Amino acid sequence: MSQTPANLLTTLRAAPPLVQCITNYVAMNIAANVMVAAGASPAMVSAAEEAEEFAGIAGAVTVNIGTLSPPFVAGMRAAIRGAQQAGRPWVLDPVACQATRYRREVVQALVAEGPTIIRGNASEILSLAGEVSQGQGVDGRDAVEMAEKGARRVARSSGAVVAVTGAVDYVTDGTRAVRIEGGSPYMPMNTALGCSLTCLCGAYAAVAEGAFDAAVGALAHFAVAGERAQEGASGPGSFAPRFLDALAAVTPEALSGAVIHDAAVHA
Amino acid sequence: MSQTPANLLTTLRAAPPLVQCITNYVAMNIAANVMVAAGASPAMVSAAEEAEEFAGIAGAVTVNIGTLSPPFVAGMRAAIRGAQQAGRPWVLDPVACQATRYRREVVQALVAEGPTIIRGNASEILSLAGEVSQGQGVDGRDAVEMAEKGARRVARSSGAVVAVTGAVDYVTDGTRAVRIEGGSPYMPMNTALGCSLTCLCGAYAAVAEGAFDAAVGALAHFAVAGERAQEGASGPGSFAPRFLDALAAVTPEALSGAVIHDAAVHA
Amino acid sequence: MSQTPANLLTTLRAAPPLVQCITNYVAMNIAANVMVAAGASPAMVSAAEEAEEFAGIAGAVTVNIGTLSPPFVAGMRAAIRGAQQAGRPWVLDPVACQATRYRREVVQALVAEGPTIIRGNASEILSLAGEVSQGQGVDGRDAVEMAEKGARRVARSSGAVVAVTGAVDYVTDGTRAVRIEGGSPYMPMNTALGCSLTCLCGAYAAVAEGAFDAAVGALAHFAVAGERAQEGASGPGSFAPRFLDALAAVTPEALSGAVIHDAAVHA
Repeated sequence: MSQTPANLLTTLRAAPPLVQCITNYVAMNIAANVMVAAGASPAMVSAAEEAEEFAGIAGAVTVNIGTLSPPFVAGMRAAIRGAQQAGRPWVLDPVACQATRYRREVVQALVAEGPTIIRGNASEILSLAGEVSQGQGVDGRDAVEMAEKGARRVARSSGAVVAVTGAVDYVTDGTRAVRIEGGSPYMPMNTALGCSLTCLCGAYAAVAEGAFDAAVGALAHFAVAGERAQEGASGPGSFAPRFLDALAAVTPEALSGAVIHDAAVHA
Repeated sequence: MSQTPANLLTTLRAAPPLVQCITNYVAMNIAANVMVAAGASPAMVSAAEEAEEFAGIAGAVTVNIGTLSPPFVAGMRAAIRGAQQAGRPWVLDPVACQATRYRREVVQALVAEGPTIIRGNASEILSLAGEVSQGQGVDGRDAVEMAEKGARRVARSSGAVVAVTGAVDYVTDGTRAVRIEGGSPYMPMNTALGCSLTCLCGAYAAVAEGAFDAAVGALAHFAVAGERAQEGASGPGSFAPRFLDALAAVTPEALSGAVIHDAAVHA
Repeated sequence: MSQTPANLLTTLRAAPPLVQCITNYVAMNIAANVMVAAGASPAMVSAAEEAEEFAGIAGAVTVNIGTLSPPFVAGMRAAIRGAQQAGRPWVLDPVACQATRYRREVVQALVAEGPTIIRGNASEILSLAGEVSQGQGVDGRDAVEMAEKGARRVARSSGAVVAVTGAVDYVTDGTRAVRIEGGSPYMPMNTALGCSLTCLCGAYAAVAEGAFDAAVGALAHFAVAGERAQEGASGPGSFAPRFLDALAAVTPEALSGAVIHDAAVHA
């Protein structure tokens, strides 16, 4: 029994879920604005002194390693513990996890904690799958299609739903998969929209019965809003306010028009 | 002898006060842009290594616990000490102070330091007053009217002017009170505008003779600019640049049109 | 053999350089958006645990002391070490270096490491030159012309190219100098655009043969884009998205129209 993006958005808007977002310094403001515009209630609570307790009142936790440091990692671990104790979903964003030894070590430890959803670009998911990436730094230089097989492998080994985002998104739990079309070429030109989408995956996961439907719902919301925001934009700067407006304006009916295709799942 | 918002804005624009803003990571950029647009000069200086010294050259200090952590708290304490030594006003924003034990402890210690102004949403002020709130996380689910009595109590016990912001704002020093109308429904959809308003309270406090007039001035500036920015906005995203433009464009004359009502003060 | 701004922009767009930007919390989001819009690939990696390693894969490093703290300083030192080992340029932004003893000490130590480019406002450069500034806090109250002599002195003593930005920019390596006109009065009303320009100096330095040409290229890009973004803006808020659009839309041909004058270099 799958829940459509339209179903989930209706639920989300009826009772905005509180989502504890541990995200990076670059993303904090835009991610909070994305969440509120989309219909969720974000809280950027990351200190180890309170992250576990706060997770007990949140509907979901999201964890992003963009501007990694030991205090952040301590907060992430505390929040994950709190989510696990409360039986709540948590989402991992392995930003640039291929770039340094510190990132690789931290991300391995986090994956071992059993995230509900992992959202990354192709380079990051390839790295998690143990494959060679063309990505430098935080770029996603690799095409999503190159990471589909790796995504299924990561999903099977970690138990997480894996969402690879790019020109065409790919979501898999290892046994089924979909591709989602839409969005705008201005999206990768707006920093931290991927990080913001990770937070939105948390919001959808907080209200969904299954993680696969949650990830598809969040990605569909972004894809439809991105396409709308593209109209009339004349660059990455004028795209940004249009995108927030569109996230807020998207109705469940509009989400029904999201372009989602089933994808065959091989080995 | 009260100073009107128009008087204060004239003074502010004539000599932009330097305000040391210790605010959260989500708010830093928008708060700085709000301050500059409104006519003040913000400095986001929070490290304990320099916060006390810097407060000695600032016209006011503002302290916000949004993304609380021990290093932030050390910086807050140092800056407050510096403000006290220099005889300067300081403003407290008790973000989500009801959410965790850590927040409750920190905010109690900060209130005990004697802030000049406390600005919060209804849930936060109710929590400071020791009353039960409906708020979850950082939301202000409670209506401002529900917190008016609590605000007066907090004002009397702490000695601070208390500003509760929401659809209609309320400002009290425990013996007198006003309500301020205006703003826009897009304001709570723009993250950290409340935090930015706290910084602006600091700017007005730096140039005002009294904290009550300062808080009213800052809130009136926001209310008038928010109403203007609403015109032509088609969502929270397109509201944001209009709001910054309106903060800058608001004249002292326009502030004279702010809707400010005296409110009866009972027990 | 000097490389024109147009030459450098062509090179930059052909292969966007990865730039490790250690910048302040206020600047991180806008700086990343500025970099992507202009055509570079930013990575905000500052933790001491990975900053040195990351610098080994970056084309340049930029270091900004805006929201200084001991962990930031440790990360800066690690990144500078990595850049030096890899033979890569690094850029210093001495934000408000005159404001506190902590800043003065840190910035002296960083200048002693031999930055490739130093970019600041007039007050900051005057302070580095050991002259008295009128600047309070992070403001640049001093006019660029007042800092030209100091800039040449700092350039000669440090070996860095020094860029002083303001209404008219000034770039010198101690033996030659240019002035760059353009930009918009809304630029100083948008917080952290100077910090963002420091990052862009890093991007140009990553692709240029010489630091002088790199600084001139980055400043010319900002000047031309700022002038364009001014058209149709009705305040600092509506300027911001237009500026990002303009940074992306500026072509090498348009950069050829930048107003750059040779300046006489005396003592």
